[in-house]
Amino acid sequence: MIDLRSDTVTKPTAAMRAAMAAAEVGDDVYCEDPTVNALEARAAEIFGREAALFLPTGSMGNTIAARMHTQPGQEVVCESRAHLLDWEMAMVAAFAGCVPRTVVGEGGVFRWADVEKAIAPKIYFKAQTALVWVENTHNMAGGIVTPVDVLEEIWAGAKAAGLKTHCDGARVFNAAAALGVDVKVLTHGFDTVMFCLSKGLGAPVGSMLVGSRAAMDRARELRKALGGGMRQAGILAAAGLIALEEMPSKLADDHANAKLLAQAVASCPGVKVDLDRVQTNIVIFEVGAGKSGELVQALKAAGVLASAIGPGAVRLVTHRDVSREDCQRAAQILTSELTKLAS
Amino acid sequence: MIDLRSDTVTKPTAAMRAAMAAAEVGDDVYCEDPTVNALEARAAEIFGREAALFLPTGSMGNTIAARMHTQPGQEVVCESRAHLLDWEMAMVAAFAGCVPRTVVGEGGVFRWADVEKAIAPKIYFKAQTALVWVENTHNMAGGIVTPVDVLEEIWAGAKAAGLKTHCDGARVFNAAAALGVDVKVLTHGFDTVMFCLSKGLGAPVGSMLVGSRAAMDRARELRKALGGGMRQAGILAAAGLIALEEMPSKLADDHANAKLLAQAVASCPGVKVDLDRVQTNIVIFEVGAGKSGELVQALKAAGVLASAIGPGAVRLVTHRDVSREDCQRAAQILTSELTKLAS
Amino acid sequence: MIDLRSDTVTKPTAAMRAAMAAAEVGDDVYCEDPTVNALEARAAEIFGREAALFLPTGSMGNTIAARMHTQPGQEVVCESRAHLLDWEMAMVAAFAGCVPRTVVGEGGVFRWADVEKAIAPKIYFKAQTALVWVENTHNMAGGIVTPVDVLEEIWAGAKAAGLKTHCDGARVFNAAAALGVDVKVLTHGFDTVMFCLSKGLGAPVGSMLVGSRAAMDRARELRKALGGGMRQAGILAAAGLIALEEMPSKLADDHANAKLLAQAVASCPGVKVDLDRVQTNIVIFEVGAGKSGELVQALKAAGVLASAIGPGAVRLVTHRDVSREDCQRAAQILTSELTKLAS
Amino acid sequence: MIDLRSDTVTKPTAAMRAAMAAAEVGDDVYCEDPTVNALEARAAEIFGREAALFLPTGSMGNTIAARMHTQPGQEVVCESRAHLLDWEMAMVAAFAGCVPRTVVGEGGVFRWADVEKAIAPKIYFKAQTALVWVENTHNMAGGIVTPVDVLEEIWAGAKAAGLKTHCDGARVFNAAAALGVDVKVLTHGFDTVMFCLSKGLGAPVGSMLVGSRAAMDRARELRKALGGGMRQAGILAAAGLIALEEMPSKLADDHANAKLLAQAVASCPGVKVDLDRVQTNIVIFEVGAGKSGELVQALKAAGVLASAIGPGAVRLVTHRDVSREDCQRAAQILTSELTKLAS
Repeated sequence: MIDLRSDTVTKPTAAMRAAMAAAEVGDDVYCEDPTVNALEARAAEIFGREAALFLPTGSMGNTIAARMHTQPGQEVVCESRAHLLDWEMAMVAAFAGCVPRTVVGEGGVFRWADVEKAIAPKIYFKAQTALVWVENTHNMAGGIVTPVDVLEEIWAGAKAAGLKTHCDGARVFNAAAALGVDVKVLTHGFDTVMFCLSKGLGAPVGSMLVGSRAAMDRARELRKALGGGMRQAGILAAAGLIALEEMPSKLADDHANAKLLAQAVASCPGVKVDLDRVQTNIVIFEVGAGKSGELVQALKAAGVLASAIGPGAVRLVTHRDVSREDCQRAAQILTSELTKLAS
Repeated sequence: MIDLRSDTVTKPTAAMRAAMAAAEVGDDVYCEDPTVNALEARAAEIFGREAALFLPTGSMGNTIAARMHTQPGQEVVCESRAHLLDWEMAMVAAFAGCVPRTVVGEGGVFRWADVEKAIAPKIYFKAQTALVWVENTHNMAGGIVTPVDVLEEIWAGAKAAGLKTHCDGARVFNAAAALGVDVKVLTHGFDTVMFCLSKGLGAPVGSMLVGSRAAMDRARELRKALGGGMRQAGILAAAGLIALEEMPSKLADDHANAKLLAQAVASCPGVKVDLDRVQTNIVIFEVGAGKSGELVQALKAAGVLASAIGPGAVRLVTHRDVSREDCQRAAQILTSELTKLAS
Repeated sequence: MIDLRSDTVTKPTAAMRAAMAAAEVGDDVYCEDPTVNALEARAAEIFGREAALFLPTGSMGNTIAARMHTQPGQEVVCESRAHLLDWEMAMVAAFAGCVPRTVVGEGGVFRWADVEKAIAPKIYFKAQTALVWVENTHNMAGGIVTPVDVLEEIWAGAKAAGLKTHCDGARVFNAAAALGVDVKVLTHGFDTVMFCLSKGLGAPVGSMLVGSRAAMDRARELRKALGGGMRQAGILAAAGLIALEEMPSKLADDHANAKLLAQAVASCPGVKVDLDRVQTNIVIFEVGAGKSGELVQALKAAGVLASAIGPGAVRLVTHRDVSREDCQRAAQILTSELTKLAS
Repeated sequence: MIDLRSDTVTKPTAAMRAAMAAAEVGDDVYCEDPTVNALEARAAEIFGREAALFLPTGSMGNTIAARMHTQPGQEVVCESRAHLLDWEMAMVAAFAGCVPRTVVGEGGVFRWADVEKAIAPKIYFKAQTALVWVENTHNMAGGIVTPVDVLEEIWAGAKAAGLKTHCDGARVFNAAAALGVDVKVLTHGFDTVMFCLSKGLGAPVGSMLVGSRAAMDRARELRKALGGGMRQAGILAAAGLIALEEMPSKLADDHANAKLLAQAVASCPGVKVDLDRVQTNIVIFEVGAGKSGELVQALKAAGVLASAIGPGAVRLVTHRDVSREDCQRAAQILTSELTKLAS
């Protein structure tokens, strides 16, 4: 099976397994796990921040950020198809008590001007805007990258307007790889940034939040509250350290593979896909309303796993556990099944 | 001053004042206020329901409904400019713990097909859809009426999909008047309906929720929780009874006055207004981005109060405290000020 | 019927009814109701504060205070039988997201030393203490008064410890009357104070919050959120003004009547009542486990309404709608029924 | 250093490390991790339940249970020093929206009769009781065991009263070892049970929830919401499987070591400790108000880590990473330092 459902399915490498087996550990609730401490120090360094925090999942990091930067009864500005809105179990409401105020970005990339229109007027009987939320890359928009100039504008605008900013950077290393810039450049203006060690970077479990010392102290409290205060977490952090050091440089391969798949798909009958929007490791294409389920079934029978993300929309995600050869084979299978579907 | 900011500014009539002064009262937390009990019985009768509940505000009724029909962590489908989303202090999130899932209705009127696309697939890691929310008339869409056939379709669809339905009927008597139907016809398929005794009906304070006995029992608990369990509330209910009996038949006058204002405005230079969308007592028109504040100031100086509801959007609302003559005078002032603004 | 269940049953006076009928009103959501504005100004003056806010109920005022002075995930220190804990629908948790941390005050009056022991140590994995909550008089402790020296100690301690303080002063005028001091003396050190215009002061509906201008601005937002933003609320405020001016001086009568009832009850067989604890308008006595319901039934049949507040506990509350003569008659009925019960 | 602060400090065994390195993994959000699936099946079997769920922490399991068995605005009956109340960041309020209703159990063991008195009467304006919470062993009461007959009574009572029951069994295997019964016997009547694979059982990370299939389906949703949906969690589950199979039988050694420490402490001057209350792996003793911090410092200097859990209270916890010899050495150090402290 060639598993293109998501980069969340990546399995730890042999080096990660060895590191986990040998990891020096301690009780991380007491801040005594040396491997977790090393990972947090390294992440802070890479992102040019005071501190970092290790978390069991990216969703927890996002929930912490949503709560940390707001008060219940406020609003969070996010893109209309943000992961926060669609895939995080309504925790922005159920835990942070906030309403997501959606803006529609062109191709999933919103600009400061879009945010500005969505800010609540300062009337006492209006819920006030507190936080601007940028997902980079934007998953459901097709792994789309928000470029640096757009971010600079958002950071400046938000600061002037007294709003906090958070980056859902589950795949921010993919964004950095696509743009050929350091992650610092893509994130330095955010109050907090969440990124995943699992997904493209290949660690079995783990995400991180980075920001100021004060923000991470608050995040540590909220991590404990949410049930993320794991004990000998150094086992997982050991794999995370390898993910963080070694994997970002390999993401370009995944992006090349995604392009290969997109081109194969684009040449098939009855398919709509915009090749300019295949910027990272995600390919989303349309096969006609009501047909996505059928295609996914057929692909599965032929040895390729894909996701139906709408009645006519299919998503493919490349990652380190599918090789160039796997993708070439998958491209053949996609071509064959799409041709059958169209006939 | 001719106050066209909102129908919330209506003042109690002499008959209401007399009734309040003479009202028989008791402790309504103990369900012993005879005037409240009479009002609740009458409202239930008018709406053809088992029970009704008297509330200090319509916002409280909506918050109760949002909480009652959902679980924290679920979604409420509503129109993109719903009062619930824009003017209720994010309580759908802060108290009910739910995310509003917006659909864009054509002219503010969404259909079941729109809702259907917004329902979350039944995947354990997706927040589930619980409630469909219809605002009738739709305030920020310009007092637009959702007609009976559209409602019938929504009720049937929601029932089949296992979703609850609530009507934010703050101005449902305006909708009924505009369509020339009984409010029962416009509301019978909803699980709960909230309507206001203040606003167009003229009571000083008060709104109501109607529904099944079980729903009202639960609503009574939530009213107590929210701090709406007033004691000798019969004082207010006495005015509410008059509002309920005598005022609905007079709303047609307000609608005629709104049309008069809309026609005056439509004939002015630089104004965009769709006369087909002036269906009840609200007129929304566009004067060009950045000019709404200026116009509202000029109107005020000339003796007319209006609301700027966007950079270029102005809203006028007619009600029982502005007469035909007031509206004729306001039309003249509007014409004069709009002409100045355009020159 | 002589209704001694609660002072919440008091009905408006003729003067209040006249004032309500004649009240000048406006839209209080727009802060344009002159009668509400007058009442708020007068309440602020009486309590020596910058501002006040009119509310439909005391519960709403308490919920606003609990939310305003805390963050979700913190703790509120209160007495073990506080109204907040037992009679406010768990809103300290359901809306403010806080845990009540109970202390047992001697006779319902806790001291700073009790609070001090209940403050959470400053460990990141402990919920932090935010607010100290004083109920004065303390209803379920029997209308007990917390005296000024104890309050001074609590204000000083809380301030030094960085904690906020709120007074649930539903019956703070009763406390002031019992101690013979001005309410300012009893409340000046609290961040906010809630008091009721209904209950002993006799208004049909309404409570108030007093505090700084900034606190009241925040409270106004939260009042809107909770659904307490009534429109022409001046109707109710008109009665509230009379309650505030004329009624506090009459509370001593209710206290004398409560003593009369307590002495009658104390002389009956099988009854436990501590006369020293009958300090205001509440009498709580014990008739033996399992017997309170029976007694309340018998009293009702004989023309007196009382409350069973536990298996063996009965509560009587005096108020302006039961006269000296009513209480003398009630004392006879109590004596007779208690004698029967004991035989 | 002999670390007696908590059994949370236990480090994974060599066998666990080997198992983690070799674990077969998959994406557990898709329910495809074979090692997690095996662990969940085995836990369900051991507890005689339909299903189980793997979690990053016990706190998350407890938060899920509190939310799952209640509605916001209800009450949870728990012991006055429950971990839920004191060490879980107020999440019973901040996430479940419920107030903890405390009962004081004799020696930390409450009985059904205690619960019964704490159940709210069925009045619409009272927050209703929903859940009975038993912590077994009870940490802050000193590792105290609630015996089977007391549990049977609570299960029967709760069922009859329509209340749900949850066991915070972070150390339920210690309770089972102390009583010499199967964990099934100690837990079969609860709706859900949480237990920890970390702590005494020695796994680096992980706890579990067990119950019906429907309960675990709901718990899986809530785990995702809280950010506990880890991906290749089989790494951790591999250690958990060993913890579950091999470690419970070794807990009796920890209990014997705790007795040894308790006896040493009991023979020292100025110490209060009740040997009958040292039933499992926890020893709590009193050294006089204000002295616990000093003792803990002195012990640390001498090579023993202990916890000050109150101004005069010190806690020692034995576990698999402190041997009999370690405890004998610790007993000597304790004797020496306590003697110095008393002189």
